[in-house]
Amino acid sequence: MLKQTITNIEPLDALWLTKARQRVDQLIKPVGSLGKLEQYYIQLAAIQKTLSPRAERRAVVVFSGDHGVIDEGVAVCPQSVTLQQTENFVRGYTGVCAIAKQAGAKLFPVDVAVNGKIGIAGVIDRKLAYGTHNIRLGPAMTRQQAIAALEVGISSVAAAVAEGYNILATGEMGICNTTPSAAILAVMTGLDPAEVTGMGANLDDARVRHKIDVVRAALAVNRPDKDDPIDIISKVGGYEIAAMSGAFLGAARHGVVIVVDGFIATVAALLAVQLAPTVKDYLIPSHQSREKGAQIASQLLGLAPPLDMEMRLGEGSGAALMFNILDAACYMGREMITFDEAGIGVV
Amino acid sequence: MLKQTITNIEPLDALWLTKARQRVDQLIKPVGSLGKLEQYYIQLAAIQKTLSPRAERRAVVVFSGDHGVIDEGVAVCPQSVTLQQTENFVRGYTGVCAIAKQAGAKLFPVDVAVNGKIGIAGVIDRKLAYGTHNIRLGPAMTRQQAIAALEVGISSVAAAVAEGYNILATGEMGICNTTPSAAILAVMTGLDPAEVTGMGANLDDARVRHKIDVVRAALAVNRPDKDDPIDIISKVGGYEIAAMSGAFLGAARHGVVIVVDGFIATVAALLAVQLAPTVKDYLIPSHQSREKGAQIASQLLGLAPPLDMEMRLGEGSGAALMFNILDAACYMGREMITFDEAGIGVV
Repeated sequence: MLKQTITNIEPLDALWLTKARQRVDQLIKPVGSLGKLEQYYIQLAAIQKTLSPRAERRAVVVFSGDHGVIDEGVAVCPQSVTLQQTENFVRGYTGVCAIAKQAGAKLFPVDVAVNGKIGIAGVIDRKLAYGTHNIRLGPAMTRQQAIAALEVGISSVAAAVAEGYNILATGEMGICNTTPSAAILAVMTGLDPAEVTGMGANLDDARVRHKIDVVRAALAVNRPDKDDPIDIISKVGGYEIAAMSGAFLGAARHGVVIVVDGFIATVAALLAVQLAPTVKDYLIPSHQSREKGAQIASQLLGLAPPLDMEMRLGEGSGAALMFNILDAACYMGREMITFDEAGIGVV
Repeated sequence: MLKQTITNIEPLDALWLTKARQRVDQLIKPVGSLGKLEQYYIQLAAIQKTLSPRAERRAVVVFSGDHGVIDEGVAVCPQSVTLQQTENFVRGYTGVCAIAKQAGAKLFPVDVAVNGKIGIAGVIDRKLAYGTHNIRLGPAMTRQQAIAALEVGISSVAAAVAEGYNILATGEMGICNTTPSAAILAVMTGLDPAEVTGMGANLDDARVRHKIDVVRAALAVNRPDKDDPIDIISKVGGYEIAAMSGAFLGAARHGVVIVVDGFIATVAALLAVQLAPTVKDYLIPSHQSREKGAQIASQLLGLAPPLDMEMRLGEGSGAALMFNILDAACYMGREMITFDEAGIGVV
């Protein structure tokens, strides 16, 4: 499924890109003056192949997974919080729930690798494991499990698309998953772990230094191949991270836009783009996370986040803030008229 | 009215600020991890004196005015575009109309000083003049007119509040009004006009250089008193700019939040804060405009805009993008539960 998905991703339609750009440039405003709203409109128009794209059918797909590296003391919370918060996604109690509700977006919580049994209906059961192995001691998972996790992401997006959702965002829940994310980013950039490892959920300075040592040890033990994203995932990744990468691939395959959340999601997007560069055509950035490494990840991805909310929660909370902005881009294209229509000659 | 308004502005309630901060810190997320959403929630809670603030009753008040300095060739568009676009606010055709419609916000277009007769019902007639005088040759208006323009802003906001709107934004329409805005900012900062004068609606480099000379000449001719905002407005300001300043004062006086748009609105906010520093408690920043000088204005105001949309349209278009984000902050406060309620002990 992974290979077939990658093979079937198509770049944006050049004709629709041109037509959308032409319409935007004729609207009654100085050329370029609506900035990124114009870019998003053009991207959505080309993806949806219409000059009146829509952004109503919104969903956030949130993947949950646990991490064996928690044994190294790299988290503030106990691991059980992953399970509790995954259940709280159904109850509507968490940050992304509130933001998605405001935006009228459906939330799809997916259990990929929570270390425990979900005790509530409404979480989609795609469990592949009860968490990764401790990456300081060896690989997170097998190569086959990494591919399976990518495919969970692909099929989760396919299911959302089948229900009519075409404006997607993705997020994650996984206590201590900034540790594998930092490890992945260190591999991809070649940077020292100290440059990409941050405070996560409020680690103090001493514990951040310890976390850096853990990331460094994980890289030394596993030696991931920087040219092979699946190797990176299996050696130092995470199930929910791989599932997000798969979600980006799936969205591109199914021709729907998908919003990238903060640090962890941006790292997952980097893996997806390495697997299939055309994925980038379907990505929309959201917020510049305050987690260390997030800016490096965004720059590497080449998509400047339009929101600077000083957020670092994860869950897709920053991505969900983009739904209304994308909708505003659609309204711009639909509601504004052109200079010709307005009888204004000069721009 | 101006003096009375300024006298009656009250700072935010310290007790409500404390209560709101306490609630935010108890929600099931790492402390501080929702960043500016937390700040906006606390600000709204303290303004509305409730732990469940609301952000549904939204309105954009847009002031239109013309500028005599257009005679100096500092605009790309003819002056008639101010009139046309003011009428188009009623028709729903412009950038802010589209964005406000997406956000379910009411638009109040106000004619303060359009050079011509509005030919459509729906524009609020508060006309004080048919534009400013050419600031390169002398003062824009009298001191009395400047005060009257401030009072148009105050009473326009009072009218919106009387209709039940309590989440406001303000914007402007006025061909070549980046020229007086640059002049005001140069006075307030003491910076050379070259550092705060930009391309406006797509002036080329040669014309930007000319525009800088015009600003410099306007300052030399008028010598505004940097310690007297009303003198600054009357010497090198504009009616719609002063009306926005008045709108900020009025919002603070009536205890409602008001979103600051881009370059011109931020300059107007600076004038309002100089008149009454407590106004700042009621301001919410929106986007970092691409107009030169905008970043300097935001830094001087001390409110970092959370949106970087590369926009520079004006009209309140960037401010209107904040309505849903403020609403998300309200949802955060209402929908999320605390650690105690969730039975999660450790943060």
